[in-house]
Amino acid sequence: MALRVGVVGGGQLARMMIAPAVELGVELRVLAEDEGMSAALAATAVGDYRDAETVLAFAREVDVLTFDHEHVPQEVLAAVADAGIPVHPGAAALRFAQDKLEMRARLAELGMPQPDWAAVSGTDELQAFIDAHGGRAVVKTPRGGYDGKGVRVVSAATEAEDWFAALAEDARGGQLLVEELVDFTRELAQQVARRPSGETAVYPVVQTLQRDGVCAEVVAPAPHAGARLIEVAAQVGTAIASGLGVTGMLAVELFETTDDRILVNELAMRPHNSGHWTQDGAVTGQFEQHLRAVLDLPLGDPSPRHPWSAMVNILGGPRTDALTDRFPAAMDEHPAAKIHTYGKAPRPGRKVGHVNCAGDDLDDVVYQARAAAAFFAD
Amino acid sequence: MALRVGVVGGGQLARMMIAPAVELGVELRVLAEDEGMSAALAATAVGDYRDAETVLAFAREVDVLTFDHEHVPQEVLAAVADAGIPVHPGAAALRFAQDKLEMRARLAELGMPQPDWAAVSGTDELQAFIDAHGGRAVVKTPRGGYDGKGVRVVSAATEAEDWFAALAEDARGGQLLVEELVDFTRELAQQVARRPSGETAVYPVVQTLQRDGVCAEVVAPAPHAGARLIEVAAQVGTAIASGLGVTGMLAVELFETTDDRILVNELAMRPHNSGHWTQDGAVTGQFEQHLRAVLDLPLGDPSPRHPWSAMVNILGGPRTDALTDRFPAAMDEHPAAKIHTYGKAPRPGRKVGHVNCAGDDLDDVVYQARAAAAFFAD
Repeated sequence: MALRVGVVGGGQLARMMIAPAVELGVELRVLAEDEGMSAALAATAVGDYRDAETVLAFAREVDVLTFDHEHVPQEVLAAVADAGIPVHPGAAALRFAQDKLEMRARLAELGMPQPDWAAVSGTDELQAFIDAHGGRAVVKTPRGGYDGKGVRVVSAATEAEDWFAALAEDARGGQLLVEELVDFTRELAQQVARRPSGETAVYPVVQTLQRDGVCAEVVAPAPHAGARLIEVAAQVGTAIASGLGVTGMLAVELFETTDDRILVNELAMRPHNSGHWTQDGAVTGQFEQHLRAVLDLPLGDPSPRHPWSAMVNILGGPRTDALTDRFPAAMDEHPAAKIHTYGKAPRPGRKVGHVNCAGDDLDDVVYQARAAAAFFAD
Repeated sequence: MALRVGVVGGGQLARMMIAPAVELGVELRVLAEDEGMSAALAATAVGDYRDAETVLAFAREVDVLTFDHEHVPQEVLAAVADAGIPVHPGAAALRFAQDKLEMRARLAELGMPQPDWAAVSGTDELQAFIDAHGGRAVVKTPRGGYDGKGVRVVSAATEAEDWFAALAEDARGGQLLVEELVDFTRELAQQVARRPSGETAVYPVVQTLQRDGVCAEVVAPAPHAGARLIEVAAQVGTAIASGLGVTGMLAVELFETTDDRILVNELAMRPHNSGHWTQDGAVTGQFEQHLRAVLDLPLGDPSPRHPWSAMVNILGGPRTDALTDRFPAAMDEHPAAKIHTYGKAPRPGRKVGHVNCAGDDLDDVVYQARAAAAFFAD
């Protein structure tokens, strides 16, 4: 009997688990939100991940349940766990990925380096935080944000009035998260895989470049990273994985500050855009590693295969033709570029693919990845 | 509209096209011989590849037709081509992979280095060849052989009497192929990709180790390969690809003789066991390259990613448990090993998976691949 992994969500992260699952010989089953999604090839069910019956029926046919996203409600996760089906990451860990206030509070308990933050219940509290932090701050809705959504830089509390109003209407009530606006030199990401038995595998810390709140480029490992940075990032990643009980892939988004500190920005408990380079640049890609971790198999070697790797996202994509129509020109110019597309219709700003390049020369690797990805622009 | 590649045959070669197809964003469709085959995930049809109607109906839904094996009859290939559907490799090239006598004759026309050979119609002619070549020779049925089947080392013509008898009953009639028994130091393989427009990509020549006529191990590139060997192998591979009009992946199995010559042993016009190392060891794996070639897309960089790669087949597999039951032990000991399994039931001698390792040290790479594969033995 093949090992069966069930993935809730049919997006590109589920899709990119297909290749390593087929190669290992693991049966991947996907509960997709809709027909024709990115991971359609492996979709064995279509249904609403917020419906416990739907998820439970899907989960009963697999050895372990995992996710393409962190949005499955706690009560649904509980129903699956109550049925005795392994869920990785588990509900207790996912809580910290689902609610940024809980995440901040827990990271504080763990002594992790973070931006100054507070839970604010109204504009007065928010304004007080802004005033105490140089007149600007970042306000975040604790739940439901991604790719820059639910994040707002404000200089007056009135700019978040609509969010407070929305919270007041939410049965869960609650607060907004406010954080100091960090003066950072660059953004980094640390990936760690952790299996239920506790083993962890630490990827090299990478440099990420966001545009409009969306990941645009990643360079691995992070250039000009000293031994201290590498060590601190790995320690923070491992401490969070263990402290939060994460199983599967964890990505910790980090700020490197102008005064040389590392601060935790966001968490993702799943394969993450900052790790797409590992598909072609690491001995064990993050998607294979996630499958191994959630199956509680020994983790693979996370070492880079090449001195440098670069990943450039294809955002939006061509408006009038298909991504594959650009293959001839892109491949002709860049025979070493690894082109990945997600089977998604182009739409402005949407992640529809990415390009990985790897090699010995940092500048060349970055240039090749950018130039190849540019062939897929509108 | 996604590019659609149709593969006739649902074996592990079709299966291993799934991963690069998904990553590129190419739609792979497989016409499998049966339910539950190795490439079942991509199987969109089940039917007899010897039936023109079946193959034609399948082919009408794809942009190009290609193959997991070389056994599709010429009349079926002709029917697909007549319908205006691109077929790669085409019928004219496949003829030389389907009939070893035609292959030998054509390679002779091209001036390729070969063992002495002859087409023999009966035991007298065969005995004459044996006598003229030191009392031993290799007899081969021109059609239908693979993995050592249809190949016999003989020292007397009477040892092939059953094959002559079978030929006499075959409506096509015909002859047997006899070849000198080559005194070789080792076997090599040269892979070349060629697209319809003529572009070729040449992989490094590799060393292969056969056991009982079945590929057991591959080391890439071939150790102790001098510049002349590398050049000759590449020239032979490219000349055959062009001379026979091969499109897609071509593997040329070679003997390196004790007197330092390179002789062509066999051909395969598809991804080949000697190229499985490229999945983890080359910038462009042979399965991606085959898809690019048959789609007439620019070919990918065939360069190795590491100084050394080794591939060790999992032959037979465990009798009493599943391959995946061996994952914990194998992965624990060999975190850098890339384990590939084919979703096939274990059976003595059957190819059910392989292990790839890559790195800087030849001995270590070979050791790791062998040791990891050994965990899957009976």
